Amino acid sequence: MSRRRYEKVPFPVANVRRYLEPGPIVLLTSRHAGQDNVMTMGWHLVMEFSPSLLGCVIARGNHSHEMIARSGQCVINLPTRDIVDEVVGIGNCSGASVDKFERFGLTRRAASKVAAPLLDDCVASFECRIADRALIDRYDFFMLEVVAAHAAVSPAHPATLHYTGDGVFMVAGKVISRRSHFRPEML
Amino acid sequence: MSRRRYEKVPFPVANVRRYLEPGPIVLLTSRHAGQDNVMTMGWHLVMEFSPSLLGCVIARGNHSHEMIARSGQCVINLPTRDIVDEVVGIGNCSGASVDKFERFGLTRRAASKVAAPLLDDCVASFECRIADRALIDRYDFFMLEVVAAHAAVSPAHPATLHYTGDGVFMVAGKVISRRSHFRPEML
Repeated sequence: MSRRRYEKVPFPVANVRRYLEPGPIVLLTSRHAGQDNVMTMGWHLVMEFSPSLLGCVIARGNHSHEMIARSGQCVINLPTRDIVDEVVGIGNCSGASVDKFERFGLTRRAASKVAAPLLDDCVASFECRIADRALIDRYDFFMLEVVAAHAAVSPAHPATLHYTGDGVFMVAGKVISRRSHFRPEML
Repeated sequence: MSRRRYEKVPFPVANVRRYLEPGPIVLLTSRHAGQDNVMTMGWHLVMEFSPSLLGCVIARGNHSHEMIARSGQCVINLPTRDIVDEVVGIGNCSGASVDKFERFGLTRRAASKVAAPLLDDCVASFECRIADRALIDRYDFFMLEVVAAHAAVSPAHPATLHYTGDGVFMVAGKVISRRSHFRPEML
């Protein structure tokens, strides 16, 4: 299939709640020691407008946990329903053994303030630096500051994916299941 | 209008991500010193399955902040699109000066493990106790443990409200605006 690539323009970091407060599943990209990785992540929240603070849980079982903890940086990319299969696939394999960018045909672009890449396949991307490590060891909870943001001008309200567990996403008012694409232990 | 009241049954606390990971706006109820309060809250995340941990930001400007910090308890209630006007109204006045339960015709029910009330007007309710106060002072960030959960058997996928700021909610794939119901300074 031919996949849409989104051209993005600068977006005010103080307004990222516009995209993240609704609670979409996101694709978290990271770069460390010359390697890039991407993971699917659904446990995040907005914590402050200015400075633009986010919080997210990145379980230490994920290859990205160490890469982000060591590099101190990551990019939060916002996927839409058109790439739900890629979102599920990315969440069901590990960057420790797979080049997910190649496997899922993702298009990377250099970020402006961090080393981790932006994804053209997503409607918005938020460049982040770790702002507070206080709860990383106890809860795998990362506090991030958004230092640069990029968003496509259209669609105004992208059809984002909201994960309920059990392989089921809510999207644009409809429910679509990709349960059969999940490994049993991931459900 | 006659409003639906939802009869709920016990729900496994380890599965609350089913309702909260999608990132809906919620109604947070609290009780302290003989007074009940309710606020609209959108900044929350799931942090762990078992124990069932959530995190949320309750800005100290909210009357609920002190009530929850002092009582150590609250209930997270999940509203649906049918009460979007009540959700907006609750978010645009303060329990310091208004009995929101009376003003918005909310129906309270006793919780099982905390003093704060459940709301029959919502499809699910999660009884919480403060699990960790480490980031309350610095970030107004409360870590909560869900100690009891209640959910309506139907609908299987309630049409929840996902707030984008600027008076606009995403719901069931459609965007509905209540911008005209907001006070300018709340936008």
